[in-house]
Amino acid sequence: MPKLTNIGYLATCRQEGRQHEIHLIEDAAIVWKGDKIVWVGNEVDLPAEYEDEKTFDAEQAMVIPGLVDCHTHLAFGGWRPDEFEMRLKGKSYLEIAKAGGGILSTVRETREATVEELYEKASGFLSEMVRLGVTAVECKSGYGLSVEEELKILEVYRRLSEEQPVHMVSTFLGAHTFPAEYREDHTAYVDLVINEMIPAVAEAGLAEFCDVFVEDSAFSVEDARRILVSAQAAGMVPKLHADQLTSCGGAELAAEMEAASADHLEKISDKGILAMAEAGVVGVTLPLASLYTQETPLDCRRLVDAGLEVAVATDFNPGSAPTFDLPLAMMLACNQGRLTPLEALKGATIYAAKAIHRQREIGSIEPGKSADFALIDAPDPNFWMYHFRPNTCREVFLKGEKLNMGG
Amino acid sequence: MPKLTNIGYLATCRQEGRQHEIHLIEDAAIVWKGDKIVWVGNEVDLPAEYEDEKTFDAEQAMVIPGLVDCHTHLAFGGWRPDEFEMRLKGKSYLEIAKAGGGILSTVRETREATVEELYEKASGFLSEMVRLGVTAVECKSGYGLSVEEELKILEVYRRLSEEQPVHMVSTFLGAHTFPAEYREDHTAYVDLVINEMIPAVAEAGLAEFCDVFVEDSAFSVEDARRILVSAQAAGMVPKLHADQLTSCGGAELAAEMEAASADHLEKISDKGILAMAEAGVVGVTLPLASLYTQETPLDCRRLVDAGLEVAVATDFNPGSAPTFDLPLAMMLACNQGRLTPLEALKGATIYAAKAIHRQREIGSIEPGKSADFALIDAPDPNFWMYHFRPNTCREVFLKGEKLNMGG
Ligand SMILES: [Zn+2]
Ligand SMILES: [Zn+2]
Repeated sequence: MPKLTNIGYLATCRQEGRQHEIHLIEDAAIVWKGDKIVWVGNEVDLPAEYEDEKTFDAEQAMVIPGLVDCHTHLAFGGWRPDEFEMRLKGKSYLEIAKAGGGILSTVRETREATVEELYEKASGFLSEMVRLGVTAVECKSGYGLSVEEELKILEVYRRLSEEQPVHMVSTFLGAHTFPAEYREDHTAYVDLVINEMIPAVAEAGLAEFCDVFVEDSAFSVEDARRILVSAQAAGMVPKLHADQLTSCGGAELAAEMEAASADHLEKISDKGILAMAEAGVVGVTLPLASLYTQETPLDCRRLVDAGLEVAVATDFNPGSAPTFDLPLAMMLACNQGRLTPLEALKGATIYAAKAIHRQREIGSIEPGKSADFALIDAPDPNFWMYHFRPNTCREVFLKGEKLNMGG
Repeated sequence: MPKLTNIGYLATCRQEGRQHEIHLIEDAAIVWKGDKIVWVGNEVDLPAEYEDEKTFDAEQAMVIPGLVDCHTHLAFGGWRPDEFEMRLKGKSYLEIAKAGGGILSTVRETREATVEELYEKASGFLSEMVRLGVTAVECKSGYGLSVEEELKILEVYRRLSEEQPVHMVSTFLGAHTFPAEYREDHTAYVDLVINEMIPAVAEAGLAEFCDVFVEDSAFSVEDARRILVSAQAAGMVPKLHADQLTSCGGAELAAEMEAASADHLEKISDKGILAMAEAGVVGVTLPLASLYTQETPLDCRRLVDAGLEVAVATDFNPGSAPTFDLPLAMMLACNQGRLTPLEALKGATIYAAKAIHRQREIGSIEPGKSADFALIDAPDPNFWMYHFRPNTCREVFLKGEKLNMGG
């Protein structure tokens, strides 16, 4: 049973209590067996039975649970750097789409890519994410938009979850946008999602969650309800991209459907906040997306003050959030979203785990949970976010194994 | 004469032309002798005389001039993480000051520190900054606020410039804020700056620039003019912290005084922009400061469109901008300030050099200039800012020497 000792500051991030309580233990030690934690506490209280075990020295680092990125679009073909530059120059969404950009260009390039190509690219991202301290990643489909192509993307995630050490959770997002071939008949596309995609995904057991992009310019609340009811019947748990550009009832629908999470929420109404709080839906803030699209960031404080649990994620995708830097998203959630650093830390660990229904397995450092931790070069979470530096992660343990962090 | 070959994308960042022209050379090579560049061009055109020289392989990296951080407050005692958290919780400046925070707490801790302590701390920052690709740093005093204590900080910078490889430029900022002992008599403090500090700094040859914090809550335009006129007479070049919180004539004064730069400018008026453009004053944007103080960021596009040269810097200091991450400041200057990535790159190289009157020595890759370059893991500047990653700097050459990037 290996152990990690000489921990200066251990943020266990247990879920109990208020959002800003991370259940600190100073001068701590952790013992694990295989991939599961068996003991956590003050090092002076370490039971004698563990004393002779293999020891890793944290050298007074801060230790946090492995970070959980609970919202990514990890597998995609191509990139859209030109669109980034066009946006900075003030070009509209329409002008970008006319120039061949926008989400449909990623759909085109993703359809052209093979499973192997998507696998290689996504696994490269995962290796870089792990070096930032990320040990669990939720991944959405949604750049396929046909039965075959959606299954292809989810198949990439299945292989990644079998072959990569990171914890992976898959979400079916067939209702991401309308593909070009259904531009004139949205209802037919919604029918395709319900009648063909959901049964095929469920049959293959390829996704645990079903997400819908609810927005005036995407799927209506009525479309989303139909899709999520059908996904739920097929055994998938609802999630929503909601209230990003307009307050159009996405949060309220998330509450009604008892979704695992509603994400974005930049334009959430007070009514939506209340509904989500009552239903216990996790709110996921995606500050990199608002930064890269020049939109007003979500004021997370409104949500926390109403009793919501707020998770922080990257929304990593080639259009609106082309970076997987979760610590940066946390820092923005503080400076722009008014989370405290302790709240942002819980947002990227235990509440992120809750947003993907993994709060029993990951997201905190407690006996019985997966032995996933990141050693951070900072004295405490507040200082970590305050004196923000490009990469402060010294070591990562994932399922009990110390990872090779080499270049 | 060593050379760097196999450069995929060389952004020379020559000053000629428009802000977004970085004077690209693909498949480039650079040759230098001692610390000075002697040849830059396409590798196929490399003169035969250089062929047998020692060769470094850039492995198709993007190569940019060493980054120039033209606005930092590098030497300070203590830190203010509690204040960061208080600000996130909505505490006002006054409440923070009452709790013992604010700039005067840094003044207290800086006065308590020895030259050796300040030197050690600042040189630690410099080593980390260099690993991000930064090869030149401007450093301001301003946490001393007495003759002796201001000289102490400038002495730290003198030692750093003698003993550290980074190019250093020192700025006297006695007029940063009013020290506690002059709270009741601001005029007496301005007189102290003019009659004692400036002569002492000039006599010791410790600063090339003199900066003043012009703000309703700090030094008035009239105070600043008196100070800068006197500093100019003593051989120092004017700089200004201007129009950060209110539009109070700082930019106009910078134009009147032909300052090297006016920095912050979040609240600059159209009149101020015009005046600076006519006088050729560089505008320095400090996006980390607005981010950390929850203020509206500067729209740099307004300045560029009016013909200003806009530099990007960190404002690294323990209060309003506690991070020295210049690439992050550049990314924010794009996403929040609407600079294009090419403009942000010139802003952190040649225009930053101009803001500290070093455009003849550093800031671009041209024969005769210092052999300072950073090898960046990105195909081009646009992709670098778009797919933003925590640290993309692979190698740094400073004054012709390849730096050890270990640890
Ligand atoms: Zn998304
Ligand atoms: Zn400053």
